[in-house]
Amino acid sequence: MDESLNLVLFSGTDDKLQAAAVLTAGAAALGRPVNVFLQYWALDAFRAGAVDRDHGLAPEAGAEGERAVRAMTAAGQVSWAETFRQAKEIGEVDIEACSLSMDLLKLEAADLDPLVDGVEGVTAFYLNAGQGQIVFI
Amino acid sequence: MDESLNLVLFSGTDDKLQAAAVLTAGAAALGRPVNVFLQYWALDAFRAGAVDRDHGLAPEAGAEGERAVRAMTAAGQVSWAETFRQAKEIGEVDIEACSLSMDLLKLEAADLDPLVDGVEGVTAFYLNAGQGQIVFI
Amino acid sequence: MDESLNLVLFSGTDDKLQAAAVLTAGAAALGRPVNVFLQYWALDAFRAGAVDRDHGLAPEAGAEGERAVRAMTAAGQVSWAETFRQAKEIGEVDIEACSLSMDLLKLEAADLDPLVDGVEGVTAFYLNAGQGQIVFI
Repeated sequence: MDESLNLVLFSGTDDKLQAAAVLTAGAAALGRPVNVFLQYWALDAFRAGAVDRDHGLAPEAGAEGERAVRAMTAAGQVSWAETFRQAKEIGEVDIEACSLSMDLLKLEAADLDPLVDGVEGVTAFYLNAGQGQIVFI
Repeated sequence: MDESLNLVLFSGTDDKLQAAAVLTAGAAALGRPVNVFLQYWALDAFRAGAVDRDHGLAPEAGAEGERAVRAMTAAGQVSWAETFRQAKEIGEVDIEACSLSMDLLKLEAADLDPLVDGVEGVTAFYLNAGQGQIVFI
Repeated sequence: MDESLNLVLFSGTDDKLQAAAVLTAGAAALGRPVNVFLQYWALDAFRAGAVDRDHGLAPEAGAEGERAVRAMTAAGQVSWAETFRQAKEIGEVDIEACSLSMDLLKLEAADLDPLVDGVEGVTAFYLNAGQGQIVFI
C-alpha cells in the first residue's frame, strides 16, 4: 500500500487553500509523501508575488466567516503559503503545476512562486500518485 | 485493506451537506465505518440549534435549483441532519470537529450539535482513517 | 488493489466539469476503469441538449478567469463534454446518474445526454467502486 497523499487543488480561495495546507502539513508530519497538483484558480494563487495576497473566501463564508478569518490572521495565524513552506521543510512535499492550466492562464514556470517545484501533465500526476489516495479540493 | 470512508467536510451549504449525508448513510448501510471531520463552514452548520436552519445552496444552484430543493423539502425529504442521525443508528459513524476550525469559529464542544462526537486535530483524523479512503467535500 | 477511479461529480460549472473530464481522460488513457456518478448540478449539466451550453464558472474565477476560459474556447479547446466522449472511446468509462438527484431535478432517463449510461443509487455506486479510489468534485 502506497501511503502517498495526492491533492488536486482546484480552488484558489484562502479558506480552501488553508484547509489544503493543513492536510498537507499533517500528512507530511506523519511521514507520508504528499504530491500537490495545481489547477485553475489554485494555480493562479501560486503566481510569484501572489501567494500572500487576499484571495477571498468561498461565497458561503458570509460576512461573519470573513470576520472570523480576518481575526485569526490578525492574531498571527500562519498563512496557507507559510504552512506549505513548513510542510516542505518537515516532509516530502512536491508541488506541481498542471500543464493544461498553465496554458489556460498563459503562465510560464518563471511566473510561479518558488513553492512550486515544476510543471507536469495529468498522466505524470497519476504515475507519481501510484496507488496513493487522490483528494480533490 | 481498510474499508473505512473518511470524509473531510468543508462546505456548509445544504446541498453539499445532503450529498455528504447520503454518501455517509450509503457507506454505513454497507457496513463500512465512516469518519467525518468537520472544518470551516461545515463545522459552522453543526452548531447546536443550527443544523435545521437554512444554510443556503452552492451559488451555481441558481433560482431553478433552489426551487427544486425547496420542493423536495416540502414533499417531506429527510434533512441532511436527519440523514446523518439515521446513518449513526444503522452503522459506525463518528463525527469529529477539527480543532483548528473550532479555534477559528471560537467554539467550545458545548456549542455543537449532539451529532458531533468530539473534537480532534488533523493528525488524529489521519490515524483514525488508516489506509481508508479520504474524500473532501 | 482495484485501480478504478470513482468520481462523484456534484458541481456543474464548466471549469470543474473540465477538470473532471481531464482527470477521467487521463485515467482512461492509463487503462484505469472510471466510474462517474452525477449528482445535483453536475447532473443538471448532463441534460440532453444542455452539455454544450454555458454553465458558468466557479464564483472565484472572477472576470479575469472568465476571459481566460473564453479565450481557450475561442482558440479551439475541446469542451468537457467532448473530452468525456473521447475518454469513453479510449477507455472504460461509465457515467451514471444518481437516482436521488434524478428525483430532485424531476428527470427521466430520456432527459439525459447520451453520454450518460444509466441511473443508479449510491449503494450501486459503492459496489461498482469496490476498493477503487473515490474522488468528490
